[in-house]
Amino acid sequence: MPDPEKMVAAVQAYVAAFEAGSADAVAALFADDATVEDPIGAPIHHGREAIRAFYAQSMLTGAKLSLEGAVRVTGDYAVFPFAVHLNYDGGPKRIDVIDTFRFNAANEVIEMRAFWGPTNMHGF
Amino acid sequence: MPDPEKMVAAVQAYVAAFEAGSADAVAALFADDATVEDPIGAPIHHGREAIRAFYAQSMLTGAKLSLEGAVRVTGDYAVFPFAVHLNYDGGPKRIDVIDTFRFNAANEVIEMRAFWGPTNMHGF
Repeated sequence: MPDPEKMVAAVQAYVAAFEAGSADAVAALFADDATVEDPIGAPIHHGREAIRAFYAQSMLTGAKLSLEGAVRVTGDYAVFPFAVHLNYDGGPKRIDVIDTFRFNAANEVIEMRAFWGPTNMHGF
Repeated sequence: MPDPEKMVAAVQAYVAAFEAGSADAVAALFADDATVEDPIGAPIHHGREAIRAFYAQSMLTGAKLSLEGAVRVTGDYAVFPFAVHLNYDGGPKRIDVIDTFRFNAANEVIEMRAFWGPTNMHGF
């Protein structure tokens, strides 16, 4: 089983990687064969290189993350509420999101799913 | 697909049902063949009657819920951060939780999963 402290540290590193604008730092948190579904229902990105490219694209908006509550840790999951702050179409926007990170025994994220939809987009 | 407004209303009804201490009102939100996993890794409750009994037991602690952020709605999921406030072992306690509700086309919850663990329990 993954280590709860390392799972929380990975979430904090994820937020810090956005602050630094580093898709490489985000990708380093994922396993080689990880998957990312963001948002639910979108095509799934498979593998660390596809994941890195997805985050590099996301970061073009200058997206920064702010945690909005405790990281919930249970079994191999860390789940957390946050807001994405970004610039798009001429002004600041916010999206309220909850991510589920599932970890492997090496404390790498093997599955990420992002829960947000139209009702969670503000200022668009 | 379920209706986003009805999905949010179901979450609000869930909170209200705890306020009223009504396991029946909670169970009415679930489909006949729904499943509840609370927390992740615990034995899964199958079917509305088993779910009603599980919530009746939970409510013996006087548990009340407070939403701690927006309900995230995407596809057939509503996902929300909240705190459980309860009395246990002689004093007030709090547990930080995120639930995922998955809905069917009749806007009934068909799958509930609750994400919380030891690090989310306060005052115990």
